[in-house]
Amino acid sequence: MKLNVLRVNLTKRRTKKEIVDEKTTEKFVGGRGIGVKILYDELKPKINPLSSENKLIFATGPATGTAFPASGRFHVITKSPLTGGIGDSNCGGDFGPELRFAGLDVVIVEGAAERPVYLWIKDGEVKFRGAKKYWGKGVWDTEDGIREELKDPKIRFASIGPAGENLVLTAAIINDKHRAAGRTGVGAVMGSKKLKAIAVRGTGEVPVADPDGLRNVMKDSLKLIKENGVTGEGLPTYGTAVLVNVINKHGAYPTRNFQTGVFPTADKTSGETMTKTILVDKKACWGCPIACGRVSRVTTPPYQTDGEGPEYETTWSLGAACGIDDLNAITKAHNVCDELGIDPISYGSTVACAMELYEMGKIPKEKLGGLELKFGNPQAIVELAWRTAYRSGFGDDIALGSKRLAEKYGAPEVAMHSKGLELPAYDPRGIQGHGLAYATSNRGGCHLRAYMIAPEIVGMPEKLDPFKTEGKAAWVKTFQDIFSMCDSLVVCKFLTFALNADYLTKLTNAVTGWNWSTEDFLRTGDRIYTLERMFINREGFGRKDDTLPVRLLKTPMPEGPCKGLVVKLDEMLDDYYAVRGWKDGKPTRKKLKELDLV
Amino acid sequence: MKLNVLRVNLTKRRTKKEIVDEKTTEKFVGGRGIGVKILYDELKPKINPLSSENKLIFATGPATGTAFPASGRFHVITKSPLTGGIGDSNCGGDFGPELRFAGLDVVIVEGAAERPVYLWIKDGEVKFRGAKKYWGKGVWDTEDGIREELKDPKIRFASIGPAGENLVLTAAIINDKHRAAGRTGVGAVMGSKKLKAIAVRGTGEVPVADPDGLRNVMKDSLKLIKENGVTGEGLPTYGTAVLVNVINKHGAYPTRNFQTGVFPTADKTSGETMTKTILVDKKACWGCPIACGRVSRVTTPPYQTDGEGPEYETTWSLGAACGIDDLNAITKAHNVCDELGIDPISYGSTVACAMELYEMGKIPKEKLGGLELKFGNPQAIVELAWRTAYRSGFGDDIALGSKRLAEKYGAPEVAMHSKGLELPAYDPRGIQGHGLAYATSNRGGCHLRAYMIAPEIVGMPEKLDPFKTEGKAAWVKTFQDIFSMCDSLVVCKFLTFALNADYLTKLTNAVTGWNWSTEDFLRTGDRIYTLERMFINREGFGRKDDTLPVRLLKTPMPEGPCKGLVVKLDEMLDDYYAVRGWKDGKPTRKKLKELDLV
Repeated sequence: MKLNVLRVNLTKRRTKKEIVDEKTTEKFVGGRGIGVKILYDELKPKINPLSSENKLIFATGPATGTAFPASGRFHVITKSPLTGGIGDSNCGGDFGPELRFAGLDVVIVEGAAERPVYLWIKDGEVKFRGAKKYWGKGVWDTEDGIREELKDPKIRFASIGPAGENLVLTAAIINDKHRAAGRTGVGAVMGSKKLKAIAVRGTGEVPVADPDGLRNVMKDSLKLIKENGVTGEGLPTYGTAVLVNVINKHGAYPTRNFQTGVFPTADKTSGETMTKTILVDKKACWGCPIACGRVSRVTTPPYQTDGEGPEYETTWSLGAACGIDDLNAITKAHNVCDELGIDPISYGSTVACAMELYEMGKIPKEKLGGLELKFGNPQAIVELAWRTAYRSGFGDDIALGSKRLAEKYGAPEVAMHSKGLELPAYDPRGIQGHGLAYATSNRGGCHLRAYMIAPEIVGMPEKLDPFKTEGKAAWVKTFQDIFSMCDSLVVCKFLTFALNADYLTKLTNAVTGWNWSTEDFLRTGDRIYTLERMFINREGFGRKDDTLPVRLLKTPMPEGPCKGLVVKLDEMLDDYYAVRGWKDGKPTRKKLKELDLV
Repeated sequence: MKLNVLRVNLTKRRTKKEIVDEKTTEKFVGGRGIGVKILYDELKPKINPLSSENKLIFATGPATGTAFPASGRFHVITKSPLTGGIGDSNCGGDFGPELRFAGLDVVIVEGAAERPVYLWIKDGEVKFRGAKKYWGKGVWDTEDGIREELKDPKIRFASIGPAGENLVLTAAIINDKHRAAGRTGVGAVMGSKKLKAIAVRGTGEVPVADPDGLRNVMKDSLKLIKENGVTGEGLPTYGTAVLVNVINKHGAYPTRNFQTGVFPTADKTSGETMTKTILVDKKACWGCPIACGRVSRVTTPPYQTDGEGPEYETTWSLGAACGIDDLNAITKAHNVCDELGIDPISYGSTVACAMELYEMGKIPKEKLGGLELKFGNPQAIVELAWRTAYRSGFGDDIALGSKRLAEKYGAPEVAMHSKGLELPAYDPRGIQGHGLAYATSNRGGCHLRAYMIAPEIVGMPEKLDPFKTEGKAAWVKTFQDIFSMCDSLVVCKFLTFALNADYLTKLTNAVTGWNWSTEDFLRTGDRIYTLERMFINREGFGRKDDTLPVRLLKTPMPEGPCKGLVVKLDEMLDDYYAVRGWKDGKPTRKKLKELDLV
């Protein structure tokens, strides 16, 4: 198993084909793993993420686009302009498989174009094309326009909207109109390179080392996925927003910028309510039997919209986070984010932060053009999405993300972030392990480095007491290592509800031809996670950054089932470093040797 | 009386001071008159209005910025990208007087900058300054930003928003955040030149030839303005939207794209209702005792907004024209238009046209992203204002104006325009003279070339029967000539409710030192009007273009006081040409000689 790499230099308008050799591939797999390897090796420390020195890597992995379920994904890796650390985001849709059909596994984008361009990749052939007529356009217009221009309705895209062009620090890269590589501002890096889109079309097949082995593991896997309560029932029936009532019932649904974990009207925005109201259809990413995607329509003004979602995360970030329970407004804002290329998690959280700052009297009324930035105002979440993408009016401030916003207005403690990345839709005061996961995530506040909700709330693969701290460090590490592998193979993490590491190892062996044990699988995940840590250490991150907002550490949850709790990070962090073989947030030399990283 | 001209070449980044001599000034006065003179002399015929060959002229006149009431205006003249004919628009606020305080009467902008720039004029000194950081920004951010950058809170502006930058054919030039040179797409010409703004600050005085004479005419004039029912009571008390109920009662309030003249719920958007609901304060342009401007605030979602207006025209174009009676949505859309630099008349009329096309089944649903483009949908008028300025989604089509839009979707008869310019807020089927005024307006569908509403509806200076055609041609001509003079002096046309041509002649003589009779005054207006006609003749306009949409000529008004009527243009047009001394829409050589134009 080798990886086919296309290296594109936008400054010089040159492309080059390269190969990642067998040995390196077996060490870093693909996707996120190979991405951080390339970034660590090729990037000078402390560069400006929005300068032409940064690189933007689109990486599939050995499982992408194979017949294996939920393998329609790719990973984007870069230095984050939002956090200054590792920037990366995983994305569904259909771009990843198409890239492999075109004979490529990885695209490395270097330099920066002088004028807007897009890349047109057809079966491995690459052309630079002028994107002047798409610059300023939303993602949907861009996809439709390029398809029409190139007269091929089957082209797939990774593209940015005005948010990326305007260097909004929370800008996303979008594919298939509604699938986002949303987090850490990867869209702004693409914008800084004046790269509007990568358009790709492939007619080849994806190589699989052991087709029989793949068929075997697939047979079992499909059964397990179907029988699993989450992947076989909850997600297909209600979409990801099936979690709204679950998490709210636990008192961990972050409401009004994490002021509480109980949102009394949460059900108005739940997956169940969505199914009864705005749902039009269900939709799957490429080759996925789960089909958690929602096609939705709001038919009444003032928030009429046709589109997809909202997902659990956006239902929350554009909803409860801002005290909003208007599902129509949430859906509209969600679609504006997709169309204009904004990460709705970071965007919504930043608006929530702004609402708290405004209610504290920190943001002057004159900045807002009449918009009352109070919690619960549905207009705010829609109007500010427009303004953020175009950096118009107060949107210019929201474009900074919550950390910079709260610093600008003199109350940094109000930004609910870790390492500069806005936290997602789980208040960890009553989910201790998830709190540790947020704090130790290499990319910052994120539920997708380790999803402790599975054991601590859902009870999968076994039920842990969410209020306890004991033993959580090892769980977090294992999740982080498995998820590193999911992002590197690249497959959807939802598989992990149904498939354990043994199955994923079998999958890995089938697609690559390697002969791994489950231990090899986990060790490779560990290696990838540790290399990311080396990257952020080099950028200045350490123990001081493995932390949470003071609200979660010091202010007891005011009500609900988690009343009185805070995250007892101190009780877990040293354990975590111990199980990782790190010291003060940095891998020891011994550990690096073990992982073959020095 | 001479005029001080600043000629700015953006291509060469050069400026030059020039003088318009006494003789030419006495022939063309200033403002609109001198503007069309310069344009006619200097522009090659048939140029592309959005090419660097076009010129953009900002012109004040001898009365601008004097102590005379309602003299805080300026005129913008160019070749229109919307109509292909004469493009010009008059604007209140404070930019005009400030230009004269800075020692300048006229600014001619030529060529086009390579990168966004703004001009900074301080007491006649001119600097080119980079506008990169304002490009993409709304007008309000731009005004605030440049004031802060130059550390002078008293700077005045003429600037464009994203609509002008994005060459929206209905883009406006804005000053004082809410005053618009709105019509004929002058903002797109400014955008094509990459000129973001003209910032001006002056500390000098405006020269007046006969200060005693001015004091005398002012004394009488102020009294007449105060005693007049319109300028002394209606406009100050209720703003221009005092007309909503008046015109609707006459059955001439164009509703749902001129499908009828009766809007049953018009009062919900009237000046009277506005005063009871959203009004915060009244506001005057520079030195105006009438103060028809409104400061308004909408405090409830989903249309919260702080700003000014709406005026009568926008109340209509963003309201009844689209079947909308939601004053909050109208006010929000009005402010979005001001902030992003769009002409709300042409914008609203184009949306109305799109709504009719959609209801006819001409516009496919897929173009609209879920927005139901039906008459009466308040969301549409707000959302499409954003989309139009940024040319996003269906906004890219609205940006074309109604004529091109209706042609694109195969029903040109649905565009309610004359000569390519959208008609304003009076259905002329029951106001015959006003129909003639629309048809013969040199710049296209417009109520400000001749305001026949005054005699035909309001009864000023005397009451004419609006249903009759007899004698209307002469009235229209006189109004056109007087208004040409108002736009050239430059003073507000509202003065003409209170002051007749004798008074305006006295004003002219006082500020210039000339010794005109009222006949000279009217003859000069005639000359200016005729020179405009020569300009549009040269561009290909003739009798065929002196017309109205077929709906107004052939489809009888379906209901109300004007039921059964159409505009009997045929009964008036030849008369009009006869009183003008034109033939088939073109001035005769004899007439040109009389006016000293050959």
